[in-house]
Amino acid sequence: MFFENIWYCVALASEISSRPIGRVVCNRPIVLFQTAKSGTLVALEDRCPHRQAPLSMGTVIGDEIMCGYHGWVMAADGRCVHVPHQETVSRNARIESYPVAAREGFVWTWLGDPSRADPAEIPEMPWLVADDRSSILSRFHARANDQLMADNLLDVSHADFLHAGSFGSRAGQRGETDTVRQEMETWTKPGSVHSRRVLKNVALGPMAAAWGGFTEPVTRTTSQNWRPTNTINIELAMENRENRILINHDHIMTPETETSSHYFFAFTRDFVLDGGYPNDEDMRREQETTIRTEDIPMVEAQQRNRIAFGDPLDVPGQADKFLIAVHRRIAEMRGER
Amino acid sequence: MFFENIWYCVALASEISSRPIGRVVCNRPIVLFQTAKSGTLVALEDRCPHRQAPLSMGTVIGDEIMCGYHGWVMAADGRCVHVPHQETVSRNARIESYPVAAREGFVWTWLGDPSRADPAEIPEMPWLVADDRSSILSRFHARANDQLMADNLLDVSHADFLHAGSFGSRAGQRGETDTVRQEMETWTKPGSVHSRRVLKNVALGPMAAAWGGFTEPVTRTTSQNWRPTNTINIELAMENRENRILINHDHIMTPETETSSHYFFAFTRDFVLDGGYPNDEDMRREQETTIRTEDIPMVEAQQRNRIAFGDPLDVPGQADKFLIAVHRRIAEMRGER
Amino acid sequence: MFFENIWYCVALASEISSRPIGRVVCNRPIVLFQTAKSGTLVALEDRCPHRQAPLSMGTVIGDEIMCGYHGWVMAADGRCVHVPHQETVSRNARIESYPVAAREGFVWTWLGDPSRADPAEIPEMPWLVADDRSSILSRFHARANDQLMADNLLDVSHADFLHAGSFGSRAGQRGETDTVRQEMETWTKPGSVHSRRVLKNVALGPMAAAWGGFTEPVTRTTSQNWRPTNTINIELAMENRENRILINHDHIMTPETETSSHYFFAFTRDFVLDGGYPNDEDMRREQETTIRTEDIPMVEAQQRNRIAFGDPLDVPGQADKFLIAVHRRIAEMRGER
Repeated sequence: MFFENIWYCVALASEISSRPIGRVVCNRPIVLFQTAKSGTLVALEDRCPHRQAPLSMGTVIGDEIMCGYHGWVMAADGRCVHVPHQETVSRNARIESYPVAAREGFVWTWLGDPSRADPAEIPEMPWLVADDRSSILSRFHARANDQLMADNLLDVSHADFLHAGSFGSRAGQRGETDTVRQEMETWTKPGSVHSRRVLKNVALGPMAAAWGGFTEPVTRTTSQNWRPTNTINIELAMENRENRILINHDHIMTPETETSSHYFFAFTRDFVLDGGYPNDEDMRREQETTIRTEDIPMVEAQQRNRIAFGDPLDVPGQADKFLIAVHRRIAEMRGER
Repeated sequence: MFFENIWYCVALASEISSRPIGRVVCNRPIVLFQTAKSGTLVALEDRCPHRQAPLSMGTVIGDEIMCGYHGWVMAADGRCVHVPHQETVSRNARIESYPVAAREGFVWTWLGDPSRADPAEIPEMPWLVADDRSSILSRFHARANDQLMADNLLDVSHADFLHAGSFGSRAGQRGETDTVRQEMETWTKPGSVHSRRVLKNVALGPMAAAWGGFTEPVTRTTSQNWRPTNTINIELAMENRENRILINHDHIMTPETETSSHYFFAFTRDFVLDGGYPNDEDMRREQETTIRTEDIPMVEAQQRNRIAFGDPLDVPGQADKFLIAVHRRIAEMRGER
Repeated sequence: MFFENIWYCVALASEISSRPIGRVVCNRPIVLFQTAKSGTLVALEDRCPHRQAPLSMGTVIGDEIMCGYHGWVMAADGRCVHVPHQETVSRNARIESYPVAAREGFVWTWLGDPSRADPAEIPEMPWLVADDRSSILSRFHARANDQLMADNLLDVSHADFLHAGSFGSRAGQRGETDTVRQEMETWTKPGSVHSRRVLKNVALGPMAAAWGGFTEPVTRTTSQNWRPTNTINIELAMENRENRILINHDHIMTPETETSSHYFFAFTRDFVLDGGYPNDEDMRREQETTIRTEDIPMVEAQQRNRIAFGDPLDVPGQADKFLIAVHRRIAEMRGER
C-alpha cells in the first residue's frame, strides 16, 4: 500500500501556526501545529487517547495541545500530561508523535520507524530560496490516487494538448504541419530518475509567449528529476535569439487515501523580477487556475474511468519512457521494503 | 444482469453533435458524437487506450476524435490512428466501437455481438414523425433501477393517484362513489406484450379536461405495447360526445447502473395543432414537470425503500396483470440467453 | 445490534398530525401519523405491501392511510382494506403495525414483541408538565452512533471545555489556579444508573451566570439518571448566597442506523417564568445553538475518527465512572436478551 519509511510532504509552511490543522496522510489523520511558547513544529495522531476526539478541534496552550472535548492535554511527544481533576495520568494515555520538519517552504512528516527519520533526506529544492528567483507555493486536493496525479507530470507531453489554450503548443497534433523535432532521453540514478526532452521550433501558446516576450518559435528544454515517493522537479528553459527564460516547477504528491491525494506545488521564475508582467500574483493566478481547471479535472476523470473500466492495461507511447522508468523504480522499492 | 444483444436507447438525436458527450449505459461509459466531416454517428468506449482518460473530454476533428490529455487520435472504428511524435501506432491501441443508429429522434446503441446488430430491430414509433401530429421528446435521469422505472408505466392505474392533481381522476378511490367501470385485458405476442384498459364515465383532472375542452366524463382507453428491453408505447384515447383526442406517450428505460437509469420520453398529440392551448411548449412543461416532480421522486423513494426493507415480495393486484406478463417475458428472455 | 423489546423515542408529539411523517428507527423505515377521524396515534412500517412505496408519501383519510402511488388503503392495524377496482383484498396485503404512545411531549414506539409492550414502562419525566416550570422540546439528527451521542451526556465534564464559551467554566483546566473541588459518586439501581457530581467554587460562564444573576462563584450539583436504552435525565442546581436555580435537561438518543441517531431534548427551568430573560425562546435559541454547533459536530468528528483509526480502545479518566457503569449495564442487558 503506502511506503512507511519515507518523508511525506504534508503542508505548506505558511499553513502552520498555533491554530492546529488536521490532515489525512496515508489514511492516517494527523494534527499539525507550531507550539505557542517554543515555536516548535509538531505532528501527532489526530486523536485524544481518552475518547478519540480529533485534537485538531483543540487548542494549543504553551508547548502542548488541549483536547476541545474534555480538556485532556498532550505534550509534543504524544504523552498525555494532564487530565482535569486528576492527580495522576494513566501511562496508556499516549498517542503517536511523528518526526516533522520544514524545508524551503514545505512541511514534511515521517510516518514510519522514527529512528530512521533523517531530515537530511528531505528533497532539497534550493531554487525556492535563491536570491535571483521568485517563487510561489500552492496546495491542491485531488480525488485521484497520488501516483495517477504524479503520472500527469511524468508525461509532460500533456502540456501541448491539455494546456493548448494557455502555455501549450499543440506540437505533434495530427494533421498539423509538424515542424517540431523532439529529442528525449531518460536515465536512472540510485535515488532518482531523470529525463530530458528537447523540442525545437516550438510555436508557444499565448501565455508562455508573453512571459518571455517571444514572437518567434523557441527551443523548449524540459529537464525532469523524480525522487521518491513522488517529488517531481522540472526545469523548463525556453530560448531563441530574442530571449532565454528559466522556470522551475515542482510537484509533490502525497497520498491522502488510495483514491485521493494532496498536491503541493511551487513555481519559480528567473524573469521579470522587477514588478512588470508577470509578477508573483500573475503566476499564482495563472498556475492555480490551470491546475484546478485543466490538470486535476482530467486526472480525476481518469481515476473514475479506471475504476469504471476495471483498471485496464495502459498502452504506452514513446513519450512514456520517463513514466515507465519511474514506475519500475517504485516497483523495485516495494520489493526492497 | 444486463441484456447484451439488444438495442439500448442512449440519447436524444438532438443531443448529438460534433461536441462529444459521455454517457454510462449498463455500467459502461460510452462517448457519442457526430463526425465533423462525414456527419456519421459514432459510439465508442469512453476511454483513451493510452491512459484511460475519457474521450468525451476530447475534441472531434474531421472524422476522428482526439483525446484531450495527450493528443492520441481514435477513428470511428476504435483504432488509434495517431500518437504525437510517433511514426507508428501500437496495434493494441484500440477500443470498442459500438453499432449506433438514430431513429425517429432517439439514438440507439448495441453493446453486444456487433454481427447480430440489425437496425431494423430498433423499435419503430411512426407517430413521432406523422404529419398530422406534434411531438416533444425529453430525457430524464432516475436514481432507480430501469425495471422499477418501467414498472411505473406498466401499471397505469398510478395516474389516478400519483397524478390526481393534474391529469388523473381518483377513479377507484376508497369511499368515493365509484361509478367508473374498468375493463382490462392483456395478451402476448412473440416480440411484445400488450394491454388494453378501458375506463368509462371518468371525471378528468383539470389538465386533461382542458386539453380536449371536456366538461363531462369521458371514456378513457389506454392501449399499451411493451417491447424489450423496456420500450413502452402508450396510446391514450379520451372521448365523449363533446370531443375525441388521441395521445401517444412513449417511455424508454435504459439501465445506467443497477440502481439508476436513463428515461427517454415522447409525447405526441393529435389536437390543437394550430397554436392555441396546448402547444408544444405547454406539453413539454406539463409533462416534464409531472415526471420530474411526481413519477421520478416516487420511484426513487420506492427504490430506496426496497433496499431498506431487503426487497420484500410484492403483493400484486388485478391492475398488475400487464406488469406480471412483462416480467414473465423478461424472465423467459433471461432463460433464452 | 439494536434492542428490540424496548420503547424508543421516535418523535416530538408536536411533529405528529394527519400529515404522515417517515422516520428510520433501528434501520427500519416507519410512518407516523394521527388518524383524521378518531385522532389515534399510528406507527406502521413505511411501505405499501403492493409495490413498497413509502406510505409517508401518502394521505391520511379518516382512520386509514392511502398510498400515494396506486391508492391502496391500510388500516391502523397494518391490514390493507382497499385496492382500487377490486372486490376483495389479498390476505397477504399487510404490514407491521407498532405499539405507539405519547407521553409528556415525546412519542415512543416499540419495535419488538407487541405483547410485551407496556406503556407504563415509558420513561416518565414529570417535570416537563409541572405547573411551576417551563420547558422547551427539540429534536436533532446526528451522524453518529446513538451510544456515542449518549456518552456525551454521560461525561458532563465536557461542559467545562466544549461549552467554555457559553455555560461552561474551564474548571480543571491545566495551569489554571484550580480552586474548584469536585465530588462524584455513581450508583446502580435495577432499572437505572445514577450519578451525582458536586463542584464547589465554580466561576460560571457568561450565559449560565446571566440565567441566575450570579456575580460570584457557585456550587454546581449535577444529578444524572440513565434509563435504557438511552434516556438521560439531568438535574442541575446552581446556588450561592445570591440565588439558587434548578434546571432539568433531558437527552434521549434513538438509533437511526449504526452510525446515525435521533436526539430528542428537553430543557426545563424553574427561574424567570414571568417573561424577562431568559424566556422560552431564549432557552431554545441558546440550547439548540449549543447542541448544533458544539456537541453534535464534536461527536460526529469523534465518530469519523473512531472509524478512521479502527476503533481504538479508550483510556478512561476518573470522570468516566458514570459512563463505565452505564456501558456495563448495557452489556448486561445484551447478555440477558
